[in-house]
Amino acid sequence: MPVLSQPMAKTVLTSRSDNFPQWYQDVVAKAELADNGPVRGTMVIRPYGYAIWERMQHELDERIKAAGARNAYFPLFIPESYLRKEAQHVEGFSPELAVVTHGGGKELEEPVVVRPTSETIINVFIAKWVQSHRDLPMLLNQWANVVRWELRPRVFLRTTEFLWQEGHTAHATQEEARAYAVRILRSVYEDFAVDVLGLPVVVGRKTERERFAGADATYTIEAMMGDGKALQMGTSHELGQNFARAFGIEFQSDTGTNEYAWQTSWGVSTRLVGALIMGHGDDAGLRLPPRIAPVQVVVVLVKAADGAGEAAAALAAELRGSGVRVELDDRVDTSFGRRAVEWELKGVPVRIEVGPRDLAAGNATLVRRDTGDKVAVGLDRVVAEAVAALDAVQVALHDQAMEMRLSRTADVSTADDAREAAQTGFARVPWDAVRDEEVRLAQAGVTVRCLKRDDGGLPASSSEDGLFATVAKAY
Amino acid sequence: MPVLSQPMAKTVLTSRSDNFPQWYQDVVAKAELADNGPVRGTMVIRPYGYAIWERMQHELDERIKAAGARNAYFPLFIPESYLRKEAQHVEGFSPELAVVTHGGGKELEEPVVVRPTSETIINVFIAKWVQSHRDLPMLLNQWANVVRWELRPRVFLRTTEFLWQEGHTAHATQEEARAYAVRILRSVYEDFAVDVLGLPVVVGRKTERERFAGADATYTIEAMMGDGKALQMGTSHELGQNFARAFGIEFQSDTGTNEYAWQTSWGVSTRLVGALIMGHGDDAGLRLPPRIAPVQVVVVLVKAADGAGEAAAALAAELRGSGVRVELDDRVDTSFGRRAVEWELKGVPVRIEVGPRDLAAGNATLVRRDTGDKVAVGLDRVVAEAVAALDAVQVALHDQAMEMRLSRTADVSTADDAREAAQTGFARVPWDAVRDEEVRLAQAGVTVRCLKRDDGGLPASSSEDGLFATVAKAY
Repeated sequence: MPVLSQPMAKTVLTSRSDNFPQWYQDVVAKAELADNGPVRGTMVIRPYGYAIWERMQHELDERIKAAGARNAYFPLFIPESYLRKEAQHVEGFSPELAVVTHGGGKELEEPVVVRPTSETIINVFIAKWVQSHRDLPMLLNQWANVVRWELRPRVFLRTTEFLWQEGHTAHATQEEARAYAVRILRSVYEDFAVDVLGLPVVVGRKTERERFAGADATYTIEAMMGDGKALQMGTSHELGQNFARAFGIEFQSDTGTNEYAWQTSWGVSTRLVGALIMGHGDDAGLRLPPRIAPVQVVVVLVKAADGAGEAAAALAAELRGSGVRVELDDRVDTSFGRRAVEWELKGVPVRIEVGPRDLAAGNATLVRRDTGDKVAVGLDRVVAEAVAALDAVQVALHDQAMEMRLSRTADVSTADDAREAAQTGFARVPWDAVRDEEVRLAQAGVTVRCLKRDDGGLPASSSEDGLFATVAKAY
Repeated sequence: MPVLSQPMAKTVLTSRSDNFPQWYQDVVAKAELADNGPVRGTMVIRPYGYAIWERMQHELDERIKAAGARNAYFPLFIPESYLRKEAQHVEGFSPELAVVTHGGGKELEEPVVVRPTSETIINVFIAKWVQSHRDLPMLLNQWANVVRWELRPRVFLRTTEFLWQEGHTAHATQEEARAYAVRILRSVYEDFAVDVLGLPVVVGRKTERERFAGADATYTIEAMMGDGKALQMGTSHELGQNFARAFGIEFQSDTGTNEYAWQTSWGVSTRLVGALIMGHGDDAGLRLPPRIAPVQVVVVLVKAADGAGEAAAALAAELRGSGVRVELDDRVDTSFGRRAVEWELKGVPVRIEVGPRDLAAGNATLVRRDTGDKVAVGLDRVVAEAVAALDAVQVALHDQAMEMRLSRTADVSTADDAREAAQTGFARVPWDAVRDEEVRLAQAGVTVRCLKRDDGGLPASSSEDGLFATVAKAY
């Protein structure tokens, strides 16, 4: 039996091979994920897109709390003077700031900026709350919107306003801060990307050129998108004592000396929705890994006759009772084909079709979104088979993404070969070969995404011997 | 045995009877709920305060979804011109706006306002998404921060930036919109206030003078605080066709005619944390109803000797296993008395004290925060008794708040008597007696909180016969 999704999809979406950026825009619009907002670079996250973000928040928040951080909320508005306290930080963010000059009908004495990130305001309070080593570590996280004026906006990927979580911590020693930055990278971000989103990631350290403004080190997870480009999914920073000195975060150590705290910050944002679209999507639309899918199984009533309506509702209820996130589509006044296309666009991992013909034979039809495979399943086996299919889709999407990355990653030994390979995928190249070529590569639209050791470990510095660089075009 | 909380509390908090506003500020600071932000009127919500808000979000979100609304996210920045589209709305909000004039290092062509509420931007999109009666009802909700420049800020109660949810819906008929506004009021807001927060509320309709800018009707829930003043906890608005006309929300009806949609909007905010503090707090601090408490039971290790440490940890684990939100306090390097005061300040409903002396007799001590009552409980009964105590505290706090409200509500028949009674509590007075005195009352610092029918029902208009007004001073 032919795969249903392929012929239908062609009627609604640009194909990925024809025009990947247009395909992305089409998916965002037609799966009803988001719209552009009226102020340039802003976006409206529509209910289906927001439901994906809510699932992401839930999964991330659990992991962040398991790492000991507590949620808090700091103000949107930051006095302009705060930004200037850390020199590199203000230099990095100044060009992107939105500035409020009027409030309550009057011109403000000091303009306030809309937070582009919250290091400066949060550290003012950490300085106030931390007195002694007993107050450390202080582990804070906030879920918030931030604003960075964006000249080349792209929905989910680069937007003037975006939603994110930002963690901010203070520790007694450099070792502890470094270990915590890495713990977040590994046990929160990498685990979430791989285990929930099904996106294999390259884990590494940013070069000095690419690190966060104000950080001593930035660690990153980078995934390959369907067009071979890299997408930075999350970063975790070692801030050293830079902000502690600028904001006076001092504590009395257990030996009675006054010390500056060692800090980290780390964040992931709604750009993860873009990663999900481009990491797994195909020409029929989204393909959502079951662990992140707001709707894991859709039960589609083909035609309301001969008890099919009742059977579909009963199956949906049974699936829900088994803990599956399920939706019943009984809109029989809309053609079945149109509805099937819609659920494919939305990437629902498993579709159960219930119609009078199958039902007469005691069956329903189970369709996997990732492969398009259809099988007839006895009614009493539907729940078990659907649950098994969800597990299978989760694994298959990850494996497919991993195979793509491996097949599109070239091991090369020169900067020129790396640039060449980066036109279609990732290049893995000795850092020594590109170290002095970073600017020239960037001018050609290719960047060093991260550095890692040959054994996969994180470098303690970019001047370590024997490092490898992952080089790619990037979102 | 004397109630522990009374003598200790006097050392840390201003008493409520001495100075209620100062007591409120003390609780906010000493229970580590919030701090003032650097920009006037903004606040930092500290982890313990935010944990309360997260619990509120969770409970409200469940109820909002059960009412069929879906979460989405709309931009923070609204073009100034959008605000002007609905005449009453812009008049109501203009004095409170924060205006961004510069973005990305340049002066903006059109200034943008930071949302004070999102009717104007959301309705632009509802107009785009709604074409036919089949697209209705459209039921949206968003969790977001909003900004209203505040001249007399007060943490949680009136802040320049606050967190809230705002629902926005469109319906085919006036009846349906009205029913939905009331459904949110009753099944989300009233149910949450009474059932979770343990705060009895007066449910009614706002007068024309007090209704939302741009609404045809505003419904409200109002609670009595510990000083006898009213606090508006949530509002639900019937917007009629006002915004639909201003923003062009038209749909083709099932008979083929073009109609304007009928709309609602509704919201509750972080001011609910203020309601919780002032509705239940006593001179020892917060008293949290168990259903909202981030920590329901704290197991306090009195002294680590003779197996007490192990017993305390085991009890905490057992409570956690029973689904109780529990914290183990084994900080024995801090005095027991100081820790007991801290948990009372934080309003944890039930405290289990575990020390060597009790333990030798096979007991632990269970202390109820609401009454201060202490009882010795056999170790094998601790979990069952703690769970029973949680139920008892939930009911007792509600009943106590209800008794306070009833005892401080006066039935009167003239505006002068209402003003007099409102100095110490609520006045219930025939609407006919105060209808023409509303401005004069307001000048004396007393407002009509809401109107209701004698049978408790919601009036369809303020000109209905036989209505009663609740008159009070208010936050």
